[in-house]
Amino acid sequence: MRYELYYWDGIQGRGEFVRLALEEAGAEYVDVARRGKGGQKMLALLDGRRVARPSFAPPFLRAGNVMVGQTPNILLFLGPRLKLAPAAEGGRLWTHQLQLTIADLVGEVHDTHHPIAASLYYESQRPEAKRRARHLVGERLPKYLGYFERVLAMNPQGDRHLVGGRLTYADLSLFQLVAGLQYAFPHAMERLARSHRKVVALHDRVAARPRIADYLASPRRLAFNTQGIFRHYPALDP
Amino acid sequence: MRYELYYWDGIQGRGEFVRLALEEAGAEYVDVARRGKGGQKMLALLDGRRVARPSFAPPFLRAGNVMVGQTPNILLFLGPRLKLAPAAEGGRLWTHQLQLTIADLVGEVHDTHHPIAASLYYESQRPEAKRRARHLVGERLPKYLGYFERVLAMNPQGDRHLVGGRLTYADLSLFQLVAGLQYAFPHAMERLARSHRKVVALHDRVAARPRIADYLASPRRLAFNTQGIFRHYPALDP
Repeated sequence: MRYELYYWDGIQGRGEFVRLALEEAGAEYVDVARRGKGGQKMLALLDGRRVARPSFAPPFLRAGNVMVGQTPNILLFLGPRLKLAPAAEGGRLWTHQLQLTIADLVGEVHDTHHPIAASLYYESQRPEAKRRARHLVGERLPKYLGYFERVLAMNPQGDRHLVGGRLTYADLSLFQLVAGLQYAFPHAMERLARSHRKVVALHDRVAARPRIADYLASPRRLAFNTQGIFRHYPALDP
Repeated sequence: MRYELYYWDGIQGRGEFVRLALEEAGAEYVDVARRGKGGQKMLALLDGRRVARPSFAPPFLRAGNVMVGQTPNILLFLGPRLKLAPAAEGGRLWTHQLQLTIADLVGEVHDTHHPIAASLYYESQRPEAKRRARHLVGERLPKYLGYFERVLAMNPQGDRHLVGGRLTYADLSLFQLVAGLQYAFPHAMERLARSHRKVVALHDRVAARPRIADYLASPRRLAFNTQGIFRHYPALDP
C-alpha cells in the first residue's frame, strides 16, 4: 500500500504524528503537499464539493479508496496495518486513549501561544500568552507528564513502552510530544525531566531507533519553528 | 451488559455524549458518581495506583473487565455494541472522525470562558473571554457548523443523518453540540440557524426521538448551567 499524507508544508504540526508512524514502519508514502502542486490538491480535497467524506482540516490520509482524517483516527487506522498497535480490541482502545490524551495536550500547547484566536498573530496576544504559559508550565505539563510517567510505571510488561511489551504509535507520539516541549520550553523541561525520567528515557529510546534516527537526520524531518504547534518564544519559558 | 459511567456530578459536560448514546440504545447503565459515595469511587479509579489503565480525566466507562476513557474512544467502543455505528471499518472511522471534530469544537467552547487557565475562575479572565468569544462566534462557529452542514448535504444517503441512512452516535453528539451552543450563545445561534438549516433540523429530529425525549424530560438529564462546558454568560453573546 502506498499512502498519501496530506498536511501543510513547512511545519511538523499534527502531520508529524502520522509521519513518525509511517517512517518507523518503513511504509511507502508521499507527503503530498510538500511536492509541486500538492498544496492545491490538498485544498481541493478539503473544499469537499468533490469528496463525500471531507476532513475539517489536515492532516488526512488516503489509502486506496479510503480517506481518513483527524490525527488520532489516522493512527487508529494505521496501527494494525503498520503493526504499531496491539491486535486485541482492549489494547487497541488503550493505545488510542493515550493518543487522544496526547492530542489534548497538543491542543493546549497550541493555545498557549494563541489563547485568544488562532486567526490572530501571536504578537497580538502576547500578554495573554504569557499568562497562559505560566499555567501550562506550572500546572498542565506536570499533570500530563506525571500521568504518562505513571502509565509507564504501571505497565505490567515494563516501563519501556506505554502499552504492553512492544512499540506502538502512542510511544512514537509521546516521543514527539517530549521533543516538541523540549524545543518550546527548554527551561521548564529541564526542570521537569528530573521527576519524569521514564518519559524522557522513552523519548531517548525512540530517537535512537534506526529508522527514526535516519528520519530525524533526513530532509524529510522539518525543523521545529515558530509557525508550528510547538513554538519557542523565550518570553513563554523564562 | 450493565455499563458503569464515571463522570463529575452536577454537569452535563463531556459525560453527556456518552449518556445520550446509552439512553438512545436503552442500555442498562449506572451514572456512578451521581450516587452515594460514587464520587469517591471515581476519584480512586482516577488515582491510578490500583488501575493498570487509568484515565487522565473523566468520563470513563467500565464494561465488565474493560475500562475505556476519553469520550470519543468510549463512543468508538460503544458504537457497534449499541448499534449506533456502521458495521464496516470505513463507516466506523468516518463516524469517529466526525466525533473527533465535534470534540475539537467542544474544547474550543470550553476555552472561550477559560482562555487563560482551567484552574482560574471565569471571573479572573473576563476580558480575555470576551475577546475570544468574538472570534468563536464570528469565525469558529460558522466554520464548524458550515462543515457539518456540508457533510449532511453531501451524504449520499440523504441529509437526515451524518453517516449513511441510520442514526449514529455522531448524530446524537451533533444534537448535544447544537443544544449546548443554543444555551450558551442564543443570539449568535439564532443568526446562524438560518444558514445551517440541516444541522438545526437534525438537532430537532434527535430531540424528538422517543427515548431521547423521555431522557430530556427525566431527572437523569441535568440542566445546562455555568459550571459545565457550555455556559451562558450574556457578555459573551451580545
